[in-house]
Amino acid sequence: MALSIDLNSDMGEGFGPWDMGDDANLLQVVTSANVACGFHAGDADTMAATMRTAVECGVGIGAHPGFPDLQGFGRRQMQVPLATLANMIRYQVGAAQAMARAAGGEVRHMKLHGALSNMASVDADMARACYEAALDVAPDIIIVGLAATRMEEVCRELGCNWAGEIFADRAYNPDGTLVDRRLPGAMISDGDEAARRVADMVRESAIITGDGQKLPTRIDTVCVHGDSAGAVAFATRVRDGVESAGIKLDLFAGSPLACR
Amino acid sequence: MALSIDLNSDMGEGFGPWDMGDDANLLQVVTSANVACGFHAGDADTMAATMRTAVECGVGIGAHPGFPDLQGFGRRQMQVPLATLANMIRYQVGAAQAMARAAGGEVRHMKLHGALSNMASVDADMARACYEAALDVAPDIIIVGLAATRMEEVCRELGCNWAGEIFADRAYNPDGTLVDRRLPGAMISDGDEAARRVADMVRESAIITGDGQKLPTRIDTVCVHGDSAGAVAFATRVRDGVESAGIKLDLFAGSPLACR
Amino acid sequence: MALSIDLNSDMGEGFGPWDMGDDANLLQVVTSANVACGFHAGDADTMAATMRTAVECGVGIGAHPGFPDLQGFGRRQMQVPLATLANMIRYQVGAAQAMARAAGGEVRHMKLHGALSNMASVDADMARACYEAALDVAPDIIIVGLAATRMEEVCRELGCNWAGEIFADRAYNPDGTLVDRRLPGAMISDGDEAARRVADMVRESAIITGDGQKLPTRIDTVCVHGDSAGAVAFATRVRDGVESAGIKLDLFAGSPLACR
Amino acid sequence: MALSIDLNSDMGEGFGPWDMGDDANLLQVVTSANVACGFHAGDADTMAATMRTAVECGVGIGAHPGFPDLQGFGRRQMQVPLATLANMIRYQVGAAQAMARAAGGEVRHMKLHGALSNMASVDADMARACYEAALDVAPDIIIVGLAATRMEEVCRELGCNWAGEIFADRAYNPDGTLVDRRLPGAMISDGDEAARRVADMVRESAIITGDGQKLPTRIDTVCVHGDSAGAVAFATRVRDGVESAGIKLDLFAGSPLACR
Repeated sequence: MALSIDLNSDMGEGFGPWDMGDDANLLQVVTSANVACGFHAGDADTMAATMRTAVECGVGIGAHPGFPDLQGFGRRQMQVPLATLANMIRYQVGAAQAMARAAGGEVRHMKLHGALSNMASVDADMARACYEAALDVAPDIIIVGLAATRMEEVCRELGCNWAGEIFADRAYNPDGTLVDRRLPGAMISDGDEAARRVADMVRESAIITGDGQKLPTRIDTVCVHGDSAGAVAFATRVRDGVESAGIKLDLFAGSPLACR
Repeated sequence: MALSIDLNSDMGEGFGPWDMGDDANLLQVVTSANVACGFHAGDADTMAATMRTAVECGVGIGAHPGFPDLQGFGRRQMQVPLATLANMIRYQVGAAQAMARAAGGEVRHMKLHGALSNMASVDADMARACYEAALDVAPDIIIVGLAATRMEEVCRELGCNWAGEIFADRAYNPDGTLVDRRLPGAMISDGDEAARRVADMVRESAIITGDGQKLPTRIDTVCVHGDSAGAVAFATRVRDGVESAGIKLDLFAGSPLACR
Repeated sequence: MALSIDLNSDMGEGFGPWDMGDDANLLQVVTSANVACGFHAGDADTMAATMRTAVECGVGIGAHPGFPDLQGFGRRQMQVPLATLANMIRYQVGAAQAMARAAGGEVRHMKLHGALSNMASVDADMARACYEAALDVAPDIIIVGLAATRMEEVCRELGCNWAGEIFADRAYNPDGTLVDRRLPGAMISDGDEAARRVADMVRESAIITGDGQKLPTRIDTVCVHGDSAGAVAFATRVRDGVESAGIKLDLFAGSPLACR
Repeated sequence: MALSIDLNSDMGEGFGPWDMGDDANLLQVVTSANVACGFHAGDADTMAATMRTAVECGVGIGAHPGFPDLQGFGRRQMQVPLATLANMIRYQVGAAQAMARAAGGEVRHMKLHGALSNMASVDADMARACYEAALDVAPDIIIVGLAATRMEEVCRELGCNWAGEIFADRAYNPDGTLVDRRLPGAMISDGDEAARRVADMVRESAIITGDGQKLPTRIDTVCVHGDSAGAVAFATRVRDGVESAGIKLDLFAGSPLACR
């Protein structure tokens, strides 16, 4: 069976009069779009426009909920009680479902944004609260989370649909976490190198760390960032490079993780 | 066939640390609850709690979207382009659907809030934009609107499910609009009198104006206000009075208006 | 005495992660900056950064309050009671004063933003409520308003410091109002033509309408827009053209209007 | 010289249609009011009304800034960069100054709210960022902070005006921190007992811990909470009890802490 991989990017991250990223062109390149849901970015108009274009391009639509913090773009940690957090997720997923339906599409997946994602990747209780909340609203939704983290563990327990994600443009520490952006070598800016790394990890079904270790995990999707200057060009090189390596670009299917 | 009428009230109008109204007790009295959706009041926690209690009480849940204006409680007119307004409605209805589903219920109806309702009751384009937006998201939703206004006309055209609403505590002008609150006799504070008027209007299937005219219209539900001091007592008297008059209290069925 | 004119532009109109306009370069060209105060744009970080640069460039700082409507960028009309509006103005002016002080500068002037400005230019009560509120907080503040409108009339009555404003890039109707943006000829995109018009109006001390009439008024400042693509280039041409015509570019002094 | 103490309470904690606390009556009892500044509670109307009453009652006005989190009422920890936090403080203090000026008063002091206060009481860098920001805007402002914490240390270093605060209704741990609200004995609900403890601490100029230790510190003001049911009655008993013990109730003077 031919290998395949999904390419996802955060989108719809403008708000009101403010744009962010070149969504129209990026939607020509990626296979899945994580659409901001109004709490950290993305008002209802932005969501509608982004989802409409995603539907036209055949790109899978995901809800991308975050903390209620527009000024901080959801990148500031907040200590929110889990029950409240769960309600925030339900609210945002529901809003995204409605916007997707009105755009002629549907919400296939959910991926947490920013500080909420960072916190949940190391805090199983938080991940569980968020994921159960999404499943309350959409039992078949595919949870996109960082491969080989607590997010994966929680989804294995929950038995829900899962898509494991790696980053095209980030180096990994020996424990599978991302190298701090401020350290040398943390960021991979060359699209061809990124594509090679992605192809290697997909073939090995493992995260390959900076010191050459392989951490086995299921890899379903690769994140490319949409908010930087050369984002579209970088994503295109990753896409082309991965395809040249014989890996098909396609929407993730999403399925429960095997028990251990 | 016995006459029946629904009793609705706005609920879930707190936000964060702030409460409004005695929802827990009012939910023992009414048959439908219009739940604020986060734009003018009602954060996700408030929505969850209100809807959970509504489900327990067997009260029908409605989305009650408003303008994005917490400080003004959605009571200040805003000039919002219709396409944007439609997206705001879709977003709020979707969020409400998710919260209802997680609470074990579902959104049966939608009723516009505050200034948005006032404006749409005299502006058919605005009513149409809002109602079509809700129907995009939930084709079977019952639109609750002011009986004998543009709202009714628009729903007749759309052929959607409709529930015509009258007010228990307000007097009507000869043209079927509400008497300005600041005029003498505008507000009916006596619950028994309100019940008598409601019973008369339901029996006649007409709005009865201050000068005694009857404006024929379909009446499916009566609004009682939830945010004043004696709200629960007033609602109870209306309920008891209407039942004593031989009219059954029951959830509105909601159905398309007959063509003219 | 040599003629002089001020050149003002709206600035600091980003919010959180979102930028708007090329403030850094525009601050090299204009003499006064109208800084958004957080209600329609401009969080506290944006205000601080904009004001710091303005101080470095010797540009006069103004508070630019708007409606509390981030998504609508303060461009949607809102019906706000005058007493509430006055408090909103006081709040925003005070916040701006604090940010200016911390940046080593001071708030010299106030100019209303967007829909609030449009409404106040034709509604003397609204203009008065806003201007009196600003004067409560800063008795010497210079009110910048549209020349030959209700704003001017109100400031004449109040006896406060005034700076009358014309637009470099907009054509005027016979009654001194701006030609609707959607009509042909409404927008003047050529910087040299704009400069000529500005120079003519300053020399005549009158608004020159599309049909060639002159409406006498005091002209203290010219608005150039900052949020379009060629904004800096356009502003530079206006500045150069006006200076070539022998008119000095300088901060407005601001003074009470003469009684009539 | 007769001993004296100030009594402070958080006020103006409503927002839009929502009230909190019985400010009108509490302002008859306390000597200083900490007024919410719009980020966690307190819109401009609320601020205006609260400050006007405070001026009438001769109560000292303080700015009470918090995190930008209305739903969480500023009680949820947020990780905000210090430079951003400083700008948030400047903004809120400036807004408060303007509202106070328009109400015929002035901002005498600043006290941090909720999670921001909790975090700053154990994080000197955070306290310093907040206090320096306030001093940038108002060099003579009196900083009200928890006695015998990092807040006191920072103000000693800064040499700014300080008022050390104790709580009337909370028990203290051996290290001078507050006993967790969920532990038995943490809350002191009897007003007479609270008054006795306050009088003892003021006389000793020390925090008296649960195990009877005395932690010497300067005590200038006592906090009574305003948002509970019996708040006014409790505050009145504290006030009466303290006065009966021969301690005068009076506005704190606020002065730099002595060097060590």
